[in-house]
Amino acid sequence: MLNGPNLNLLGTREPAIYGTRTLAELDSFCTAVGRDLGIDVRCAQHNGEGELVDALHAARGSADGIVLNAGAYTHYSYAIRDAIAGIAIPTIEVHLSNVFARDAFRATSVLAAVCIGSISGFGERTYALALRALAER
Amino acid sequence: MLNGPNLNLLGTREPAIYGTRTLAELDSFCTAVGRDLGIDVRCAQHNGEGELVDALHAARGSADGIVLNAGAYTHYSYAIRDAIAGIAIPTIEVHLSNVFARDAFRATSVLAAVCIGSISGFGERTYALALRALAER
Amino acid sequence: MLNGPNLNLLGTREPAIYGTRTLAELDSFCTAVGRDLGIDVRCAQHNGEGELVDALHAARGSADGIVLNAGAYTHYSYAIRDAIAGIAIPTIEVHLSNVFARDAFRATSVLAAVCIGSISGFGERTYALALRALAER
Amino acid sequence: MLNGPNLNLLGTREPAIYGTRTLAELDSFCTAVGRDLGIDVRCAQHNGEGELVDALHAARGSADGIVLNAGAYTHYSYAIRDAIAGIAIPTIEVHLSNVFARDAFRATSVLAAVCIGSISGFGERTYALALRALAER
Amino acid sequence: MLNGPNLNLLGTREPAIYGTRTLAELDSFCTAVGRDLGIDVRCAQHNGEGELVDALHAARGSADGIVLNAGAYTHYSYAIRDAIAGIAIPTIEVHLSNVFARDAFRATSVLAAVCIGSISGFGERTYALALRALAER
Amino acid sequence: MLNGPNLNLLGTREPAIYGTRTLAELDSFCTAVGRDLGIDVRCAQHNGEGELVDALHAARGSADGIVLNAGAYTHYSYAIRDAIAGIAIPTIEVHLSNVFARDAFRATSVLAAVCIGSISGFGERTYALALRALAER
Amino acid sequence: MLNGPNLNLLGTREPAIYGTRTLAELDSFCTAVGRDLGIDVRCAQHNGEGELVDALHAARGSADGIVLNAGAYTHYSYAIRDAIAGIAIPTIEVHLSNVFARDAFRATSVLAAVCIGSISGFGERTYALALRALAER
Amino acid sequence: MLNGPNLNLLGTREPAIYGTRTLAELDSFCTAVGRDLGIDVRCAQHNGEGELVDALHAARGSADGIVLNAGAYTHYSYAIRDAIAGIAIPTIEVHLSNVFARDAFRATSVLAAVCIGSISGFGERTYALALRALAER
Amino acid sequence: MLNGPNLNLLGTREPAIYGTRTLAELDSFCTAVGRDLGIDVRCAQHNGEGELVDALHAARGSADGIVLNAGAYTHYSYAIRDAIAGIAIPTIEVHLSNVFARDAFRATSVLAAVCIGSISGFGERTYALALRALAER
Amino acid sequence: MLNGPNLNLLGTREPAIYGTRTLAELDSFCTAVGRDLGIDVRCAQHNGEGELVDALHAARGSADGIVLNAGAYTHYSYAIRDAIAGIAIPTIEVHLSNVFARDAFRATSVLAAVCIGSISGFGERTYALALRALAER
Amino acid sequence: MLNGPNLNLLGTREPAIYGTRTLAELDSFCTAVGRDLGIDVRCAQHNGEGELVDALHAARGSADGIVLNAGAYTHYSYAIRDAIAGIAIPTIEVHLSNVFARDAFRATSVLAAVCIGSISGFGERTYALALRALAER
Amino acid sequence: MLNGPNLNLLGTREPAIYGTRTLAELDSFCTAVGRDLGIDVRCAQHNGEGELVDALHAARGSADGIVLNAGAYTHYSYAIRDAIAGIAIPTIEVHLSNVFARDAFRATSVLAAVCIGSISGFGERTYALALRALAER
Repeated sequence: MLNGPNLNLLGTREPAIYGTRTLAELDSFCTAVGRDLGIDVRCAQHNGEGELVDALHAARGSADGIVLNAGAYTHYSYAIRDAIAGIAIPTIEVHLSNVFARDAFRATSVLAAVCIGSISGFGERTYALALRALAER
Repeated sequence: MLNGPNLNLLGTREPAIYGTRTLAELDSFCTAVGRDLGIDVRCAQHNGEGELVDALHAARGSADGIVLNAGAYTHYSYAIRDAIAGIAIPTIEVHLSNVFARDAFRATSVLAAVCIGSISGFGERTYALALRALAER
Repeated sequence: MLNGPNLNLLGTREPAIYGTRTLAELDSFCTAVGRDLGIDVRCAQHNGEGELVDALHAARGSADGIVLNAGAYTHYSYAIRDAIAGIAIPTIEVHLSNVFARDAFRATSVLAAVCIGSISGFGERTYALALRALAER
Repeated sequence: MLNGPNLNLLGTREPAIYGTRTLAELDSFCTAVGRDLGIDVRCAQHNGEGELVDALHAARGSADGIVLNAGAYTHYSYAIRDAIAGIAIPTIEVHLSNVFARDAFRATSVLAAVCIGSISGFGERTYALALRALAER
Repeated sequence: MLNGPNLNLLGTREPAIYGTRTLAELDSFCTAVGRDLGIDVRCAQHNGEGELVDALHAARGSADGIVLNAGAYTHYSYAIRDAIAGIAIPTIEVHLSNVFARDAFRATSVLAAVCIGSISGFGERTYALALRALAER
Repeated sequence: MLNGPNLNLLGTREPAIYGTRTLAELDSFCTAVGRDLGIDVRCAQHNGEGELVDALHAARGSADGIVLNAGAYTHYSYAIRDAIAGIAIPTIEVHLSNVFARDAFRATSVLAAVCIGSISGFGERTYALALRALAER
Repeated sequence: MLNGPNLNLLGTREPAIYGTRTLAELDSFCTAVGRDLGIDVRCAQHNGEGELVDALHAARGSADGIVLNAGAYTHYSYAIRDAIAGIAIPTIEVHLSNVFARDAFRATSVLAAVCIGSISGFGERTYALALRALAER
Repeated sequence: MLNGPNLNLLGTREPAIYGTRTLAELDSFCTAVGRDLGIDVRCAQHNGEGELVDALHAARGSADGIVLNAGAYTHYSYAIRDAIAGIAIPTIEVHLSNVFARDAFRATSVLAAVCIGSISGFGERTYALALRALAER
Repeated sequence: MLNGPNLNLLGTREPAIYGTRTLAELDSFCTAVGRDLGIDVRCAQHNGEGELVDALHAARGSADGIVLNAGAYTHYSYAIRDAIAGIAIPTIEVHLSNVFARDAFRATSVLAAVCIGSISGFGERTYALALRALAER
Repeated sequence: MLNGPNLNLLGTREPAIYGTRTLAELDSFCTAVGRDLGIDVRCAQHNGEGELVDALHAARGSADGIVLNAGAYTHYSYAIRDAIAGIAIPTIEVHLSNVFARDAFRATSVLAAVCIGSISGFGERTYALALRALAER
Repeated sequence: MLNGPNLNLLGTREPAIYGTRTLAELDSFCTAVGRDLGIDVRCAQHNGEGELVDALHAARGSADGIVLNAGAYTHYSYAIRDAIAGIAIPTIEVHLSNVFARDAFRATSVLAAVCIGSISGFGERTYALALRALAER
Repeated sequence: MLNGPNLNLLGTREPAIYGTRTLAELDSFCTAVGRDLGIDVRCAQHNGEGELVDALHAARGSADGIVLNAGAYTHYSYAIRDAIAGIAIPTIEVHLSNVFARDAFRATSVLAAVCIGSISGFGERTYALALRALAER
């Protein structure tokens, strides 16, 4: 489970949109969901584009699937797109909020075409659904 | 669970993209998933835009949530968009395939902004995830 | 008087925008307005694009003018546009709300060019003004 | 009642589009219509954008509603748009001809979003309908 | 042979563009052409987008080729496009008039990419040429 | 019958798209088709835009109709467009392949608006259909 | 001869582009040119859009032709465009500099379509050429 | 200090955006700020585009710098742009509100490229900052 | 004097737009105009883009100025643009008709930026004005 | 005070645009300005997008306002935009040069909408003005 | 080695951009480079689009690779693009100058997608690099 | 020699596009090429945009030229563009694959305008050609 820029602010940043749980709580929640699904969940968060690319590369050999919330990079990072295509690990794009109901620039994803699927709008449950989707593959 | 145009062809239409299960099998699958989740699932499919609007209207008073695969109407039917907004029932947009990895016109949804969330790319499991998302609300 | 998709929800759909009167009440109101103007008003509503085309065709020989609220079809239905041009009956485009002050996509009408005029923003009075405009021709 | 650029040419300018009545005749017609509706109608016409802004400002305190035919300024004058928004008097946008059936640039109005409604295509009757709409408020 | 919206008006609608023959006469003409070519021609016309989708689906198992004049739907109906792709029956797009010499919106076809070919501009002879093209395959 | 750039490569150029017949064989085929239709067919091919313009001019006085495959010039040659309009001989635009199912730039024709009709997608039969269309005028 | 905004700065404004002659000198030059051509030239300059509209209106009955340098209004003033169309006096659009070799926004003229012709790039000689063009009609 | 259209409404127009101080109070404030900075501040306001051009021209010889709030003209007046470039006096573009956080059309300035700098978003303090910027040159 | 594609059709091509004089008559007219102006005028016409480039190159050393009507190439020939820039001979772009009042594509010139000026709309007199403009340099 | 990419090159990079002072000198200048205004100024510079996001996050709890020159990230970093919105500390966008008078891509800011204001074009004085704007809040 | 329009002007055309060597000198240089690389280099230059297409066709059977500087045709000649694709000989696109640092229209190549690679910006050395690239295949 | 994001995956990432050599092998290859050319080659690779900016800055004083494969950043990193312009060291843009024959977004380079040239499509030989181009300067 890989989170992108500003998700470390979870719980404090615009709670009307992103909820009041912190990133640590989200990580715990997802680990627990993973346990129920019989899968091992590891969580990381980075604000840097290059660090997200590094983290995706590092997943080779150690991960069977990736749940990626690339935050704002979703809308313009072709570097992350190339990383996803390059590592060839099934990746699901997720968003906490319904990105289509917000700013116009959030309706474009440059990542979605190289992911296997995408889920958005269900808050922390978005991650649980994505983990389940990976587990069921 | 409401399916749009051409989904009645499921199992025969471009199986490389849409799989080999028929719509009836998909309906059975979803009913079973619903039973597991403790919710009652009713399924319908229409090729007509007006009939989909009618079906959405008819959901008022009888449904607590809607899983909508509007097919190609997703990309241009403002009439369906207005219907979703008008009935004020939580609606999830779903797609069997990863619409972002196909024709350019499929990357635009005029419905997403008035749905609560969207899920795409997981074949028939897409529907199961959406039902779960509704059940957990 | 021909109403398009979702107008059957009048009175219950987003009342802040569309008011609290039902479609039946709107029909009665318009019939009464017509009576005052000395014209016979008949009302119909359809959610389907093809049915609206049918209704426009059916007006040939029985109507001297048409007040058309095509709802969301206003913004993309070239089929309805061709029907209006084809029947050659004076048609007025109407909208309850001021469509120019809402979503960007509502500022485009593909029908207006083949109507004789358009009126929007005055709630149910919009219809009364349009009937008067037809009566005065 | 406020008319914009070139409307002083009425009766002589492209009569196929704008009719043969002069502006003075239009003013008389509207004053008479107002009298029937029990409202006091005052008429003005300016070719200058700044003068139209001035006239809108001057309406504060003296007018309960404005019928505005901004002519070509309709399509680009954000200054007039700001004036309408600034004075907060109900304003109706009107056009003699059906602007949607003419040059492409005439299909865009930068004013409509801050007006309460708009009416176009009925010749001098357009003004009468707008006065009625104001009177009925 | 499948005709779309407003083609039932043939012979009465804008005869300068579409000619004076009625749809029934066109059907007879095409049946006769088919007889000469040794093929069995069946004709249908629908104003509804969903009904055209239904008709295309129904052709599976009963037709070896389709001559489709989708009328205005040609320019925006991705639902019909998906139906053509889904049924995998050779389909030819036809138009009575030269659509490229009319309104700008008529120069775009969302259907052509999934048809085997297209013919336009020859009035009723367009259909005869398309039938011949199918017969020669 | 006038062919444009690269059609002299027929039979050797991308046979998956253009077939294996050479231009000489296509010319023979068309001459034979013309003989059956009772019309005299002359064939020419040029790679140069100016030479195609010259050839169109030369058709005045000697041709009753033109079947034109302008190849890639179809998409940008306003000079050829002006030539077609200038000579006022009925011209049909043809393409061997279904140009709408290939590169995006091939979906635009700057010539179609000044032709009487267009036919594409039927390989060498495209030419036969066009000759028939001219013969039937 | 009607000059628009900022042309009163002639001789002092960006002389590298507009030369060192003042507007008064330009007027004298044009009057002299007119005398040679046997036509009576009257000159005016206004910075206001409305005043230019007024000046165009005032030309009715007193001028047989107009040489118009609308300055920056050339690129967006539909009000001036409507005035030119409304007065139906032959009008020639002129520019001192070659507007196509400067800022991108200067390459668009909303006036040219309603003028009889346009001349640009020859400094003060532009006006002389335009006067000659009018005189020769 | 030169203010454009609708700024005479200050204090009464949309106070949530523009504050409650009147233009007279803003002028006094700026004069006082100028006194502190040791510079002589003169204030003017015009609703007309031509009058703003006139005022800019009049500044030649009498002003060492200009603080310009061109209001809505900021977004489309190439005439004012040419005036600023023509007079060659250092000009600063200012806005009371943060224009980038409002309507999309307000994010474009056709004036900024010919000003020396721009300041926006600090209410009346915007003007004080601009005066200081001029004083410090 | 260099004329581009289709100008050899002058006198026969769309005379409503281009007049009834032939190219030979235009050449004679221009030679005579040149004689009056004391300049030697040579005339050429080519339909090919490469031949126009050749003709421009050939002008080096033998011509002091060029009057160029590039016909439809005006709108897209960057090769001719580069030729004009490369030979560094003053060139004037001319058009017989007012190209801004016709098809949208004719309002764009890719040549104008490298010419010294342009004149359009005065029929054969356009050439006379351009010759005069060159003579007066 | 937070500076973005390439601002560490100050004094050596394109001095015609950015001046000859180094970043260290700019920091000293701003600290001194802050001292005069009675505020404590801390300075940082980062070339990395993620590091700028980190620095913005770190400002929570320690800064009352931020002066941000995001350099080239201004034009595309939605990650920095989200960081500014997320920390809810008043932020002012600044630029040394007048970004509107340079490359077209520099005229777009994706950050301005979430800042409280913006100042550009006054060299190092830009920062002083921004500090003053913060101090006066 | 195939050169396009205006390259025959080399050495005289805009030497600041294209250098002072003539085309003959460039040919000699390339022949010498070829000799060093052990390959036989033949050089041609054409101003005509059709002639370049002819030259490409002629290369079949006689050339193992092509170095193509299509000059301005690079930006719009789909005919040359089709020729390159049709002959299936490895082709390298070259430019003397860095086309990306000049006019905006030069940043688009319609040829690059069907070439094996492209090299630009190194003056005559560009050709030497391209020959080496071919030799090393 | 500076490589950007995902190039550390060389040899494992999409070998059909990028080949089977690893980055270390590419570095060795380039060092050897440099030795032959008599130049000292140093290699670095970074996934982070800021780190690439840092590496470019660090080249000042130690490098005479830069071969830059910025990977996906090529298409949107104005920060890297500014770094190249700021350090004023001759830089060549390179790509292993022919970027023009792949996704549409890869056809745009925001870096090329500030590089001295660009080479793409020759696999690892691209680097060798670029080193030679630098060595020959």
